[in-house]
Amino acid sequence: MRVVITGAFGFLGSRLADTLLRTRTFRGAPITRLVLADRVVRPDSPVATDPLVDVVHGDLIERLDEVFAEPVDVLFHLAAAVSAECEADFDLGMRANVDTTRTLLDAARAQSAVGGPTPRVVFASSLAVYGSSPELPLPAVVSESSLTMPRSSYGTQKLLCEHLIADYTRRGFLDGRVARLMTVAVRPGRPNAAASGFLSGIVREPLSGAPATCPVRPDLHVALASPRRTVQGILRIAEAERGVGPGRLEGPLPVNLPALTVSVAEMLATLRQVAGEAVAGLVTVAPDPAVEAIVGSWPAVFDSGRAAALGLEPDSSFLSIVRDYLADHPDAVIRRTDSS
Amino acid sequence: MRVVITGAFGFLGSRLADTLLRTRTFRGAPITRLVLADRVVRPDSPVATDPLVDVVHGDLIERLDEVFAEPVDVLFHLAAAVSAECEADFDLGMRANVDTTRTLLDAARAQSAVGGPTPRVVFASSLAVYGSSPELPLPAVVSESSLTMPRSSYGTQKLLCEHLIADYTRRGFLDGRVARLMTVAVRPGRPNAAASGFLSGIVREPLSGAPATCPVRPDLHVALASPRRTVQGILRIAEAERGVGPGRLEGPLPVNLPALTVSVAEMLATLRQVAGEAVAGLVTVAPDPAVEAIVGSWPAVFDSGRAAALGLEPDSSFLSIVRDYLADHPDAVIRRTDSS
Repeated sequence: MRVVITGAFGFLGSRLADTLLRTRTFRGAPITRLVLADRVVRPDSPVATDPLVDVVHGDLIERLDEVFAEPVDVLFHLAAAVSAECEADFDLGMRANVDTTRTLLDAARAQSAVGGPTPRVVFASSLAVYGSSPELPLPAVVSESSLTMPRSSYGTQKLLCEHLIADYTRRGFLDGRVARLMTVAVRPGRPNAAASGFLSGIVREPLSGAPATCPVRPDLHVALASPRRTVQGILRIAEAERGVGPGRLEGPLPVNLPALTVSVAEMLATLRQVAGEAVAGLVTVAPDPAVEAIVGSWPAVFDSGRAAALGLEPDSSFLSIVRDYLADHPDAVIRRTDSS
Repeated sequence: MRVVITGAFGFLGSRLADTLLRTRTFRGAPITRLVLADRVVRPDSPVATDPLVDVVHGDLIERLDEVFAEPVDVLFHLAAAVSAECEADFDLGMRANVDTTRTLLDAARAQSAVGGPTPRVVFASSLAVYGSSPELPLPAVVSESSLTMPRSSYGTQKLLCEHLIADYTRRGFLDGRVARLMTVAVRPGRPNAAASGFLSGIVREPLSGAPATCPVRPDLHVALASPRRTVQGILRIAEAERGVGPGRLEGPLPVNLPALTVSVAEMLATLRQVAGEAVAGLVTVAPDPAVEAIVGSWPAVFDSGRAAALGLEPDSSFLSIVRDYLADHPDAVIRRTDSS
């Protein structure tokens, strides 16, 4: 079984790679090669140096021949330009998110068309396919049956890919599965250009002793998932059998990963509880209309029945998310005063 | 005001051109040039020889420079590959319906980006953006708030364009409006490769003395609109002011054109009523699973409140649709025995 991950040296990609390298199987079958493709690679990282791993370095469209040099059984397509990037540079987003995905889908289709295996394509979409606007508010509780009307170019681009994947799957070109990611927090490392990046930053930066800006009003509610739950969800959707009943992937719809709904104020209160007043005081609230327009258009409350049928549950609390972060990244915290 | 119609020598395009050439205005302003673009043109037709008209002949992507040789104020984008074509030839559909539209949108965007007028882009979409499947049936009554999950490549491609247009509009690149067309009947002329083509053929062919095949079970219900109502609807959506209240185009959603819901059996009964038993007897019912899969996945019953707010009403009956056809195309009927 040859498994490919795009965006493999990104935060989620490398966690997914690490998870697959622990079991070295997919649906119980041995993984013979794990291909890690990315524009930016870390050749010395533990996942890159594993003997099972091949690294493909560069733009996916240009490196397509390497990715499909041998038949691809499973393709996790995580590579993407992020939300604020796509809002700032429309053409970059269209190329990175739409054209690249379409090129991958056509390569997968070409493989099955000549008698090769029908690849299982697992696409990381986003809650940004939903969008609330004054003229068209979202329902109070959002599910996969809710209308998708994105209010960002990023969300639009993800939605286009979802529909392409649905059509390629319906036609039998490939076996596509779509996991809609919630906002993943707490992300380690440096801030990225995602409009939602601050939802990690307002915890990560103060814990490391650095100031952070919160660009939305604290009463904004958001839908979060920890990195652990997110990778678990992607993998579960990838491995599920299609069909009707518990544990199976039913029908043509994407799956919204389960969400923990919290307000930004509750997040800050949790930070205060875990790390104390001085650390929490490093956060300055300074609403930015551009960020509020994107993040505020996303739904915060989900009916996650479809994910639950696959055995997926949300994080239990933001406190548990922060504790996960502290456990996974002890080096990222220089002022840890966790009283728990 | 320079107005462009793509697919202008198609059935709806030429009717729209004819309508615009009668008033020679758009929103009360004089039309200075009317550009009729199509892959196949009829240079001797009355619309083509009008002094106001420029004809652009060829593939749209290749003729883009001619279309945008002068600033475009209004672009009616009707050119498309039709449903059965797209199901038979996936790449043709992607190119004709997605790539061509994207190229046009980018040209419109480039025009406004350099300080030219922001083009009004009116896109003919389709009820095929909705799709019913056993795992995901449509609601009993469909509106613009209903989930769009197409079950054909044609519907997928139309939906992709809708979302691109929504994003280009949100960003201010252009002023996009989307009219979702119902099945247009009765179309004159020769059968085309639309899966819904038989819904015209089962009336048009017998009236001309020719046999016709009905490839669906007669209890199938369909959503129809006459050519008159369809062109009227496209033009109304194009001319409407944006805003809240009667007569205005509110919010970012497309507009479903109003539909007359009838069963195929009722259509055949109307044919019998209008033209007699012998003519109606020219229709043979022979269900074709490929056609039923496409047409049967489309919704038949709509809540058309959004269209009604723009003053648009459905045809009153299939009898009135047939009478329109007889009035507009007297030459197409060789056995007319209309008792009305």
